[in-house]
Amino acid sequence: AQASAESCELTLDQVLVGNTYVFLPETDEHMLAFAEKVFASETKGEGVRDEISMFEVQDDCPILQQEMAHHLHTDEDTDKRWKWIPTMVSPFALPLNPLFVCPSSSSSSSPSVVRRDMPDFQRVAIIGDYASGVTMDDFELSCKGMYRALAIREKYMRLAFQRFPLTSSQYLREIEGEPFKPEHTVKPVFTSPPKKGEDPFNTKCLPENLSWVARMKDGVIYTYKDAAAADQHKPIENMPAPDYITFIDDMNFLIALIAQGPTKTYTHRRLKFLMSKFNVHEMLNEMEEMKELKLNPHRDFYNCRKVDTHIHAAACMNQKHLLRFIKKSYQIDADRVVQNIKGKDVTMKELFANLNLHPYDLTVDSLDVHAGRQTFQRFDKFNAKYNPVGASELRDLYMKTENYIDGEYFARIIKEVASDLEDARYQYAEPRLSIYGCNPNEWTKLSGWFNKHRVFSPQLKWMIQVPRIYDIFRGRNFVPHFGKMLENIFLPVFQATIEPHANPELSIFLKHVTGFDSVDDESKHSGHMFCTKSPKPEEWNIVKNPSYTYYIYYMYANITMINQLRKARGMNTFQFRPHCGEAGAVTHLLASFMTADNISHGLNLKKSPVLQYLYFLAQIPIAMSPLSNNSLFLEYAKSPLLEFLKKGLIVSLSTDDPMQFHYTREPLMEEYAIAAQVFKLSTCDMCEISRNSVLQSGLSDEEKTHFLGSDYLKEGPEGNDIRKTNVAQIRMAYRYETLCYELNLIKEGLKTE
Amino acid sequence: AQASAESCELTLDQVLVGNTYVFLPETDEHMLAFAEKVFASETKGEGVRDEISMFEVQDDCPILQQEMAHHLHTDEDTDKRWKWIPTMVSPFALPLNPLFVCPSSSSSSSPSVVRRDMPDFQRVAIIGDYASGVTMDDFELSCKGMYRALAIREKYMRLAFQRFPLTSSQYLREIEGEPFKPEHTVKPVFTSPPKKGEDPFNTKCLPENLSWVARMKDGVIYTYKDAAAADQHKPIENMPAPDYITFIDDMNFLIALIAQGPTKTYTHRRLKFLMSKFNVHEMLNEMEEMKELKLNPHRDFYNCRKVDTHIHAAACMNQKHLLRFIKKSYQIDADRVVQNIKGKDVTMKELFANLNLHPYDLTVDSLDVHAGRQTFQRFDKFNAKYNPVGASELRDLYMKTENYIDGEYFARIIKEVASDLEDARYQYAEPRLSIYGCNPNEWTKLSGWFNKHRVFSPQLKWMIQVPRIYDIFRGRNFVPHFGKMLENIFLPVFQATIEPHANPELSIFLKHVTGFDSVDDESKHSGHMFCTKSPKPEEWNIVKNPSYTYYIYYMYANITMINQLRKARGMNTFQFRPHCGEAGAVTHLLASFMTADNISHGLNLKKSPVLQYLYFLAQIPIAMSPLSNNSLFLEYAKSPLLEFLKKGLIVSLSTDDPMQFHYTREPLMEEYAIAAQVFKLSTCDMCEISRNSVLQSGLSDEEKTHFLGSDYLKEGPEGNDIRKTNVAQIRMAYRYETLCYELNLIKEGLKTE
Repeated sequence: AQASAESCELTLDQVLVGNTYVFLPETDEHMLAFAEKVFASETKGEGVRDEISMFEVQDDCPILQQEMAHHLHTDEDTDKRWKWIPTMVSPFALPLNPLFVCPSSSSSSSPSVVRRDMPDFQRVAIIGDYASGVTMDDFELSCKGMYRALAIREKYMRLAFQRFPLTSSQYLREIEGEPFKPEHTVKPVFTSPPKKGEDPFNTKCLPENLSWVARMKDGVIYTYKDAAAADQHKPIENMPAPDYITFIDDMNFLIALIAQGPTKTYTHRRLKFLMSKFNVHEMLNEMEEMKELKLNPHRDFYNCRKVDTHIHAAACMNQKHLLRFIKKSYQIDADRVVQNIKGKDVTMKELFANLNLHPYDLTVDSLDVHAGRQTFQRFDKFNAKYNPVGASELRDLYMKTENYIDGEYFARIIKEVASDLEDARYQYAEPRLSIYGCNPNEWTKLSGWFNKHRVFSPQLKWMIQVPRIYDIFRGRNFVPHFGKMLENIFLPVFQATIEPHANPELSIFLKHVTGFDSVDDESKHSGHMFCTKSPKPEEWNIVKNPSYTYYIYYMYANITMINQLRKARGMNTFQFRPHCGEAGAVTHLLASFMTADNISHGLNLKKSPVLQYLYFLAQIPIAMSPLSNNSLFLEYAKSPLLEFLKKGLIVSLSTDDPMQFHYTREPLMEEYAIAAQVFKLSTCDMCEISRNSVLQSGLSDEEKTHFLGSDYLKEGPEGNDIRKTNVAQIRMAYRYETLCYELNLIKEGLKTE
Repeated sequence: AQASAESCELTLDQVLVGNTYVFLPETDEHMLAFAEKVFASETKGEGVRDEISMFEVQDDCPILQQEMAHHLHTDEDTDKRWKWIPTMVSPFALPLNPLFVCPSSSSSSSPSVVRRDMPDFQRVAIIGDYASGVTMDDFELSCKGMYRALAIREKYMRLAFQRFPLTSSQYLREIEGEPFKPEHTVKPVFTSPPKKGEDPFNTKCLPENLSWVARMKDGVIYTYKDAAAADQHKPIENMPAPDYITFIDDMNFLIALIAQGPTKTYTHRRLKFLMSKFNVHEMLNEMEEMKELKLNPHRDFYNCRKVDTHIHAAACMNQKHLLRFIKKSYQIDADRVVQNIKGKDVTMKELFANLNLHPYDLTVDSLDVHAGRQTFQRFDKFNAKYNPVGASELRDLYMKTENYIDGEYFARIIKEVASDLEDARYQYAEPRLSIYGCNPNEWTKLSGWFNKHRVFSPQLKWMIQVPRIYDIFRGRNFVPHFGKMLENIFLPVFQATIEPHANPELSIFLKHVTGFDSVDDESKHSGHMFCTKSPKPEEWNIVKNPSYTYYIYYMYANITMINQLRKARGMNTFQFRPHCGEAGAVTHLLASFMTADNISHGLNLKKSPVLQYLYFLAQIPIAMSPLSNNSLFLEYAKSPLLEFLKKGLIVSLSTDDPMQFHYTREPLMEEYAIAAQVFKLSTCDMCEISRNSVLQSGLSDEEKTHFLGSDYLKEGPEGNDIRKTNVAQIRMAYRYETLCYELNLIKEGLKTE
């Protein structure tokens, strides 16, 4: 057996040697040298997983397992290998070499190779030229573009109290020769969960009313001291709006950048490199990562926290749950009046009789809300078809906040879902509720529902989704122009923020709202190009829908203004987390790059290497829903989830619509289980995704500290508490060093100027 | 919207026309004509699913949906379309044409085109030559081979009280010009569940003891009136053993057949045809199938019965369940003595302390029983490594029937699994327990455990698995020869059958056992070829393991003898259901074709078109476990499950080892959900798989009647009760007609002789 185990290891070495990689096995003090060009050309894009399967087979080799078991249970060995020693970067730190370098934590921009306490693992190092196989000119051009793109995002994130990675900021400051000032960083504010015995609906803690005035100008709502200031458009200071002209400038720069040949080539090569590098990392370190997790007491994939970062409230129950609820409600409430049609009361019995249905006979087949043969709520035009048994009456009764029974059933279903999550203990969800902007009192009604039924659960963090269906409202003459729609959506939030006690229910509700989502079918094209000549929202009175970017800009601008106001008032802020890149043009992903804290879907990052690389550099979280995509836009096996994860993009898993896509009682676990099976994810991969989901979510600072550790805001391994996250420190270090390496390349590219 | 819906439908027509298919839309009275050659060449094997995805996109077309909804809710329309009318086969019934024909239910072998009551749907009919693109000689040769192969299987099934489809038998009789006698058909006997208040462990109902003698001769156990008859080898009459020489003859014929060029070509073409035909059927009828299901009250995929047809008892709990159980047991029983090492009592606390473990710290990572990085119980040589935390002590304590605490924990875990199934209500499982054949008292111990802990649940049907590890036992000198191993496995069963009251616990246990499984790593080659010169089991005293086929033959022969004896005594019989075709040579599948009622895995049917077609013609059930395969032998997306299902092979879904492969609390649902998502199965597909699983299982006649309908033994749509199975009658008719068509082809091929 011993001989056989040895031959296994030999094979591993030989394969690598055969590919001209040379490393010294068992020599922990030396890092391994790999030639970037060799393995960049080795990797053939999609087929990567197959190529390394040879090694996976060897993992299964039972004799090797025994070796591993021995390895894992030898305590002296453990001690030796697991002490934290300073990273040995110096042997390779040749002057011109952009090796692993951390941003200097001091303000000095002098030699940036800094020793840090990092776990010891087999690192992938690159020796030689740093232009990544493109000409020096192209390299410099690309780095310049990347730098400016990151600086643009940093600016808009800061303005809106959204997040930008510290590490990236530090590199930007180094490039600019400016000192990095941690106090310049901003972060969103979320409401902490109620203390024990505290009532989440208590209005006493609301700040006092002010006499300020909020008013829209050119599609953006400003806050003024009083009406006079408003008339003269003299908004309160220190609440700057994004500058429209600059924004368009920045946008045009980015549009040019993502189409620029050299930058496309460069970023494409960098992404391929990131992929290959992870594959090598995985081969070399997966056993070591697993070992960390095995030695980590009391924490495994099941009890590390995970957040369903993208789920629509109206479809948050699975089909079986909805069916059961309908049957149960009929048993209890058959004689209850649930509708009033033209002044005539209709009982539930009558309602079902009118539909020629008896709930006893109802099945998930006849309920017909599951995907595969169905249309989807996302396509809002066809929303009317997204109805149990094809009957909008049932949708109204069970899945609406506004109906004859004041949304009581919908509230109860959501509370049942929350109660299941509470039972599961480690799962959280961020359901979206709709504000359409059709009518200014939508907020009143929605928050009335929320307060009346006390739809609160510590497991739920609320989001507001705004469908992009101005064209429909305008067509039916519900709104005179786009500006009115924006006003209906945002003005009530400003008013409740200024006068909380005049709007107590809304103010309470807003405390529990963590962000805004923008939803609709992205594959619909508006034909409009957002530019300086675009009509202002108040002038947009045609029936045609504005473009995705136009919507995104005005949502961002108004959220920015709200956040500044709320921050000033000591209230929680909102994140902008649109659906983006599920379909349609890549420019959607560009708009979100400028404006969104994080996005849902992001599939189309596949189509733009420049944007994909930028999403990596800016570490923008992406809530992916491969099961939803599987039924709508992209077959499961073609999902870029695994590719994104390997390259180091920040992906999380979410369900989107359990009612339509899932089969089991635990939709989020189903989502993770299928990803794990299809993509053969390791426990470390799954726990990394879970950790990403908590970071991406609107959970409060207090909760994140509890779930991820007290240093969760720090980046790299020092921000990770393995006892809480079950993510290996080796993985964290790999991610951090990889990010630093790529950011440092940009710095190097700009140095030569 | 209306216009748009029309354009959708137009596209559908145009595409078909563009591919030279012509059909008259909306003309229900006429079947559609397709040229076999055209669509056989259209279909490119694996890519089929992709090719039809165009239509799937159109399913999602919401406007089409509205059309459908309208369609479904028009009652007159429903009435018109849903009356059962005689199938309109006559228009195409040209004399030489092997169109759809059912076997004649009368004994006359005259014109076999018979009208039956069948649902009306769009059928795929073939006009013209029936030689399927091979020469007439090759066609006749292939049909002859197919006929003989089926006749061989029928013979061995009948001998062992195993199943053979009535339809196939009817065709065989027609070919032979013999009358079909339903009374000739045999079927297995399973124990009905206990009546209300009846004790499943009650020994009073056992038949009385006889003075018969069971004794092994040439590896097969015979029953004799007394010892004198045994000495002269004069077994009791009417209990014929399979004839060894004939069996080898039959086997050699089949080996030649599966290698025969013309037959390979012919069956390959037939299988491609079956695939294409199903694809066309699906395109034409999936909406109609769905409509049947929607109109079917109170039954959907969730509440149709499904059986986990292949699961190992030792891994029937998921990893999280095992972890929880270990922690719980420690909380309660820390001071309980659970081991005795060299006369010294060891408490659970001490046991864990010796392992340097505290259950509180234990996680699924450190438990380390999940696949992906693990070895597997199937590879029995490495069985020792399949231990929680790598500690065989924990395996002994928690997952064994024989230990210091008499297998109490294992019994409790299994009862918890059963209780979860009882809560889920519609799910059943057939766990395997091991008999090794190392020692004659294994049965006593196992049945003692079963009775002592009353490990009975209506949700569980027990199977005995026999690992093929003679070589290990012989190597350690546990058995002198292979014959002794067989005797250890089977003789106690004969003895308990002859003298139930002398072996009450075993007799009770055997009542609840429904079959035997043969397990081990099939990829291990023994090098031995089973032939007339093979040593008899009593002479097989070398350390080398016999071949798979040798094992299978002797297991089959002994099960046959047991079944005849038990049938004569009015007791339940056993099915032979080996693991087969998971890996290794295709001859494994040949051996099972001759001997097994049904098999587990069957992946290698991919490699032999002849066997695959025979498994189709004989409708041999295959319990597939794509998640298990995904971790062991075959990537999920490459699983032949979908292909087999489409072609009409009888597939069911099973978990194999939830402990190693599954993540959620409902492993069987997880298995179905993943298959549904990855393969985009329709509800009808999933319910058909569920129905297959019930038919394949060892559930009793009473239970099958309850779960599938009183006519479940009939074949075709009349055997289906949609109210219980939720399988569309259109699907049933399609399957039945397709089988009849293929069988009829063989009949036609033999007629010309």
